Amino acid sequence: MSEIIATYLIHDSKHNPEKKAEEIALGLTVGSWTHLPELEQNQLRKHKGRVVSIEGLPEETGTKDTVALIKIAYPTVNFSADLPAILTTVFGKLSLDGKVKLLDLEFSEELKTHFPGPRFGIQGIREKVGVFDRPLLMSIFKGVIGRDIPYLVNQLREQALGGVDLVKDDEILFENELASFEKRITEGKKVLEQVYETTGHRTLYAVNLTGRTFELKEKAKRASELGADLLLFNVFAYGIDVLQELVEDNEIALPFMAHPAVSGALTSSKYYGISHSLLLGKLLRYAGADLSLFPSPYGSVALEKEAALSIGAALTSEDQFKTSFPVPSAGIHPGLVPLLVRDFGVESVINAGGGVHGHPDGAKGGGIAFRQAIDVALQGKRLQNQASQLPELKKAIDLWGCTEVVE
Amino acid sequence: MSEIIATYLIHDSKHNPEKKAEEIALGLTVGSWTHLPELEQNQLRKHKGRVVSIEGLPEETGTKDTVALIKIAYPTVNFSADLPAILTTVFGKLSLDGKVKLLDLEFSEELKTHFPGPRFGIQGIREKVGVFDRPLLMSIFKGVIGRDIPYLVNQLREQALGGVDLVKDDEILFENELASFEKRITEGKKVLEQVYETTGHRTLYAVNLTGRTFELKEKAKRASELGADLLLFNVFAYGIDVLQELVEDNEIALPFMAHPAVSGALTSSKYYGISHSLLLGKLLRYAGADLSLFPSPYGSVALEKEAALSIGAALTSEDQFKTSFPVPSAGIHPGLVPLLVRDFGVESVINAGGGVHGHPDGAKGGGIAFRQAIDVALQGKRLQNQASQLPELKKAIDLWGCTEVVE
Repeated sequence: MSEIIATYLIHDSKHNPEKKAEEIALGLTVGSWTHLPELEQNQLRKHKGRVVSIEGLPEETGTKDTVALIKIAYPTVNFSADLPAILTTVFGKLSLDGKVKLLDLEFSEELKTHFPGPRFGIQGIREKVGVFDRPLLMSIFKGVIGRDIPYLVNQLREQALGGVDLVKDDEILFENELASFEKRITEGKKVLEQVYETTGHRTLYAVNLTGRTFELKEKAKRASELGADLLLFNVFAYGIDVLQELVEDNEIALPFMAHPAVSGALTSSKYYGISHSLLLGKLLRYAGADLSLFPSPYGSVALEKEAALSIGAALTSEDQFKTSFPVPSAGIHPGLVPLLVRDFGVESVINAGGGVHGHPDGAKGGGIAFRQAIDVALQGKRLQNQASQLPELKKAIDLWGCTEVVE
Repeated sequence: MSEIIATYLIHDSKHNPEKKAEEIALGLTVGSWTHLPELEQNQLRKHKGRVVSIEGLPEETGTKDTVALIKIAYPTVNFSADLPAILTTVFGKLSLDGKVKLLDLEFSEELKTHFPGPRFGIQGIREKVGVFDRPLLMSIFKGVIGRDIPYLVNQLREQALGGVDLVKDDEILFENELASFEKRITEGKKVLEQVYETTGHRTLYAVNLTGRTFELKEKAKRASELGADLLLFNVFAYGIDVLQELVEDNEIALPFMAHPAVSGALTSSKYYGISHSLLLGKLLRYAGADLSLFPSPYGSVALEKEAALSIGAALTSEDQFKTSFPVPSAGIHPGLVPLLVRDFGVESVINAGGGVHGHPDGAKGGGIAFRQAIDVALQGKRLQNQASQLPELKKAIDLWGCTEVVE
C-alpha cells in the first residue's frame, strides 16, 4: 500500500504520546475505528492511518512536557497527489493542535512520480554557466528600490565583471515603472552579453517573478521568450504548489531560484511549524526548485548550523530527483569561503550581498576577492598565506577578517 | 503618501529595539540612507521606510530579551498591490531574522481599493439561508474518507433535518472515485432540496475545493454551474492570493469558507510568525473570505480566548469591506452555546462536529439540541432551566454538561 510517512516532534503536556499518535492516525484518516462494525472496518482498512513508531526523547530543561518523535503513515489513496492535499492531510488541523512540529515527510515511490523535481538541477545550472569544478558564486542587487534601469544595469555590469556566475534580483523588487520586469530581462541580457564578449565570463541573471498568482504563468512564459536566464521566486509568499506548476510548464522551462522570504514564519519555532530541511530542502526540491536560498550559519541573519546543513543535505541527498543547489546566504564575505566549502561542499553556491558590494574596490573587486578565496580554499591552502599575492582578497580580509579551516 | 504600517512584536536579545526598528525601516526599503548624497536622498525619499513608533513592553519571566512593539511604515509605491508582494516586503527576509512576530498590517485607503473583501459577507450569507436574528448553525461531515455518495448523502440529510444552516465537507476529503467533487454537489443539492420541501428549512452545503492551483478556477466555475452553495477552501495550503483571485472571479461568484488547515504552523508561536487576528481575521477578510473557521477557546483544540476574540473582531470591525462570519470551531456542544453567544455575538456561526453527530439521537437530534440552545441563550435564559421542556437539549446537557452565563 502506498503511504506517506510523517515525522512529528511533539511536546506533550498530557505525557501520553502513544494516545496522541493514535488520535492523529485515526483523526486525520477514518475518524474512528474500534466502534466500527467489522464490515465497515474491512471497507475502510485501506484508508486507515497507522502509527509507525514513537520514540521518547530526553526531557528538556524548562519544560515539563514529554518530548517525543512520532511517525504516522497515511495511505496515499486518501488524498490527491498534490502538496496542498498532502499538507492539509498531514498538518492541516494538526498544525493547530498544541506543540507539534512537522519534521519530515517520506513519500512512497508511487507518490514521488507525481512530482517533477528540478528541471535543470545542479548539473543543468553548471552546464548553463560552464563551471563544473568549484562552488558557483552569486551576488545580489543592493539598494535598488526606486532606481532606474541605467542604475541597475551598471550594478549588474560591476558584479559580472568581478566574475560572479549568478546575480539575483532583490526579492523586494516588484513590478515598477522605473525598471519593469521585461526591461530588466532585456537590458540585463545586453550588458551580460557585453561582459561575456569582453571577458569570456558568462554570468546569469535571476529576475524576480512577481505579481498575482494566476498571471505568473504568462509572465514566466514572456520571460522565457525574452531570453531570461533564471527566475527568482518568493515561493512562500505564494504556495509551493504554485512553484511546482510553474516548473512543470514546458512553455516556461526556465530554472527556478527559490527565495525563503516569509518561510521564517513557518520554520523558526522549535515547537511549532515545519522543519527547515523539509520546507526549504525536500519540498522545494520535489516541487522543482533548482536553487534554494536559506540563511547561512555564519552571518547576521543566522540559522543554527545543524538546520542549515540539514537543508543542504535534503537538496543533494540520494533520491530519484535531480539535486538542487544549496545557497547558504546572508552575512557572507570572502573570509568565510573556507567554512562554506567545508560545510556545504563544492556542490553549493556561495552567495553574498554586502560582501561583494562593500569591498573597497566595489562590486567588481568583491567578486574577484570571492573567486580568489574559492580557488585558495579548493587548493586546501590558508587564505591568510595566499592573500599577499591576491590584492582583492587581501583587502577583503583586512576589512572583514577570515576563518581558516586548515592548519 | 500611501503607506502600509506593520506592527511587530520583537524579543530583542541585543536590547536595542530602536536600532532594530531603523534597520528594518531601511533594510526592507532603500537599503541605506545616511551615506547617500543629497541628490539621491531626494530621489529615494518617497521610497524610504519610516519608524512610526517603538513601545517597550514589560519583561517576561524566563527571558532576558527586551520586549517591544514596533511599527514601521512602508511606502506602497515600493510594491505591487498584491499580498505576495506585501508579505515579502513586510515579512520576507524579516521573518528569518530572530524573534519577530508580525501582529498587524494597517492598509492605506488607497491600498485597500486593490482588495475585494467578501463578495457576500455576513449579510449575503444570511440572505441565502433566510436567517437574520440568530447565530447560524453549522455542522461538519465526519468520518467520510473511503465512504461513497449514498453514505455522504445520508449523513447530509440527517444534519439538515436537525435544522443546521450550513454543512461543510471534511477538509481532508479530496477528489476521489467514490464521491467526486461534482457528484457531491449534485447529489447534495438533491437531498437538501428534499429536506427543504419536507421541512421548509434551507441548509447550504460547502463543498471542498481542492486540486492543483491553476485548475482551481475552472473547478470553481464548474461548481458554480452545478449550483453549489458555497466553497470550502484550505487557503493556507495554497496561498491567500489564490483565495483572493477566486473571490474576484465573477464567473465563480460563490461564497468562500476559509479553513484554517496548516495555519497553526504560522500562528502558534508567541515569538515567531503571524498573529491570529491578522492571518485568520484581517487578511482573510480583505482577500474575500465570507466565513473564517478558527479554533474556539473552549474545546479540545483550544485557542487562547484573547486570540480567538481578536479574530472575530478583525472579521467584523468597522472597515470598508463587508464583514465575514467568525466560525469558532472544535469541541463545541450545545452546552457551550451561551458562552459562544456571549463571546462572539449573534453575528457568528456556531459550528460543531462531534457535538452534532455524537448526540444520543444522532445528527438530527444534535442539530435540534443546538437550535434549542441558541433560542434559549438568545432569550437570556438558563439552559438548565429550559432543558426539561426540550428533550434533545436535555440529552445533550446530560451527556456533555453546560456552562451558563446568566444567574
